[in-house]
Amino acid sequence: MQRYEGLVEKRIFSLPSHTAVNGRTIKDVKIGWESYGQLNDARDNVILVPHHYSSNSHAAGRYKDSDPLPGYWDSIIGPGKPLDTDRFFVMSVDSLVNMNSKDGITVTTGPASIDADTGKPYGMQFPVVTIRDFVRVQKALIDSLGIQQIHACVGVSMGALQSYEWAAAYPELVKRVVAINGSPAQRPFALCNLDKWVAPIRLDPNWKQGDYYGGSEPIEGLTQAFCNVLIDAWHPQAIAATYQHQWAVAENNPLHSQENDFLVNQSFRAVGLARATCTTDANNMLYMTRANQLFIAGTPGSSVDAELKNIRADVLVIQAWSDLLFPIADARMQVEKLLANGTRAEFRELDSAAGHIGGVTEVAKEGEAIRRFLNS
Amino acid sequence: MQRYEGLVEKRIFSLPSHTAVNGRTIKDVKIGWESYGQLNDARDNVILVPHHYSSNSHAAGRYKDSDPLPGYWDSIIGPGKPLDTDRFFVMSVDSLVNMNSKDGITVTTGPASIDADTGKPYGMQFPVVTIRDFVRVQKALIDSLGIQQIHACVGVSMGALQSYEWAAAYPELVKRVVAINGSPAQRPFALCNLDKWVAPIRLDPNWKQGDYYGGSEPIEGLTQAFCNVLIDAWHPQAIAATYQHQWAVAENNPLHSQENDFLVNQSFRAVGLARATCTTDANNMLYMTRANQLFIAGTPGSSVDAELKNIRADVLVIQAWSDLLFPIADARMQVEKLLANGTRAEFRELDSAAGHIGGVTEVAKEGEAIRRFLNS
Repeated sequence: MQRYEGLVEKRIFSLPSHTAVNGRTIKDVKIGWESYGQLNDARDNVILVPHHYSSNSHAAGRYKDSDPLPGYWDSIIGPGKPLDTDRFFVMSVDSLVNMNSKDGITVTTGPASIDADTGKPYGMQFPVVTIRDFVRVQKALIDSLGIQQIHACVGVSMGALQSYEWAAAYPELVKRVVAINGSPAQRPFALCNLDKWVAPIRLDPNWKQGDYYGGSEPIEGLTQAFCNVLIDAWHPQAIAATYQHQWAVAENNPLHSQENDFLVNQSFRAVGLARATCTTDANNMLYMTRANQLFIAGTPGSSVDAELKNIRADVLVIQAWSDLLFPIADARMQVEKLLANGTRAEFRELDSAAGHIGGVTEVAKEGEAIRRFLNS
Repeated sequence: MQRYEGLVEKRIFSLPSHTAVNGRTIKDVKIGWESYGQLNDARDNVILVPHHYSSNSHAAGRYKDSDPLPGYWDSIIGPGKPLDTDRFFVMSVDSLVNMNSKDGITVTTGPASIDADTGKPYGMQFPVVTIRDFVRVQKALIDSLGIQQIHACVGVSMGALQSYEWAAAYPELVKRVVAINGSPAQRPFALCNLDKWVAPIRLDPNWKQGDYYGGSEPIEGLTQAFCNVLIDAWHPQAIAATYQHQWAVAENNPLHSQENDFLVNQSFRAVGLARATCTTDANNMLYMTRANQLFIAGTPGSSVDAELKNIRADVLVIQAWSDLLFPIADARMQVEKLLANGTRAEFRELDSAAGHIGGVTEVAKEGEAIRRFLNS
């Protein structure tokens, strides 16, 4: 097999059916996945990189040399990089209900998929799924590859949530967790804050209770939903540093008309519109959001402390001080709880002023700490 | 005249016209106002209490004994209270474009008002106004009462913004400022964050570019806008303490259906729906939001430092540590700047875990400090 040198391809994993945590069955599950590096003969050099909320399994590399940007964590995944593809078999899997189902690359099963029983998209008839469902589907893929040990799960944001879930669900399999800007449980505030993000989708008349397939999509609602995500994922000071009080158009003072806007809003809307138009299915975003709201808290009979007690893996927690979605004080407390449970755990502060998103854009600042931990 | 003992009445002040900061003229301006206590013969015992974003001039007392709740700051305004109505003439004025124009009590001029030239509501044809416009209209009322000195301006949130604006615009008039959970300038982050609050209004098909008068109002959009305000005005931990991960209906687990929701969202929506239905005009809320976005930053030729340098008043800054809209670090810095300008300024931390809203609900914790400052 060839050494990984930056070119990747999406592969597809199929499952005849998956029974969700809530008991409902999803038939004909298909998800995409990517890998960087080679699986060794012992099949014990696997690093799993679950992705964050708005992302997919494109963690590193390019599909073709002309791609303008590589995967989101290319700074730490590759030959000689902290997640060293000369040594590790790094893999990433598209989640169920992945919101990027329109991008032509992501492979997922969710509300936008065709229900074989009706020949039409599921829409809001799709079963509610959880992050544990994401992990169970990944586990089926891992099993199909004959992998019985995971050297590490490494993820940012919802990728960190999935990494904790992996370690709690399959403690015998997972040897290490690197959780960046995440948490082993969604805090109660997130229930309303995540609802706030996607509420504009439901307000868009084109959403039609999720029954928009074949017609106009709720693009305006989706656009605003992405604006909401951006506003919360950036630190307020990072937004200020980038946009100050600038107007969208220099001669159009917002003092003179409600139509004249500020640059920050115009910019965020442009990003949101691009995502809404080219990549994102609205119903999938609603389902992805619910999965995040339910994380641990919504799983009957579970509790954060019980989940943490299940974990046998060594844990490296890396947390940006500027992250307002997963506060650093909470992350420190998680490490204390893990240590109290007898788990080996380490805390490191990510020196990023960017906010939550710093775990994606500035992760390389902790690259050497991640390398050391993976080699320990 | 009778001593103030808790009963108040709304009065109306009329101005034939007001020329806004942006140069446009608004004819036939009417605003409501209330007062608590008696104006003394020297007319120098005035405490002005400008109101916050979602509020009006009902700062204290009841219109009739059977009112379920008094005005929002009744805990500190009244006989023997920190804003002692046995000594001071406390007054509050409804702002222009006040969002509560449907409540049957607030008197304001804004997009929901009838344009005498057309006989129809202005809608989005109403001129953009600023917080300086709010203050200039208040100044006209003050002049009409023969008042030439203001003992203090005392306000929370946008009430603090107006208090700073008063002191900067009329430095010879204003002797003291008490600014609670506010700032002398809107920070850049607020431009997008405030936009996020009201974006749902524009998404509601009933909004119709502001031309909804006489038809169905954009109630759903308004409801979500209020949810957004609540989510940001409360501290995340205060939301967690109140709602935890509870479901809206005990037997309807959100794991089983997208229709099953969490209690926090149901509760916030109920509050939002009540405000949307009974008190709030959508266009007025959009205009009020723009006024806040423009605070100082949007006023041509002004700058925060220049504004602060204008202030001659003694300033007491009170800031809740839990306020995420106006961070306490910023408030400390403002006091340092004021001191550097030679202004007498004092900083106090409000010990409230409630978040931004703590300046309304827990202001009495700093009641004695406010009393001392007003008596100094």
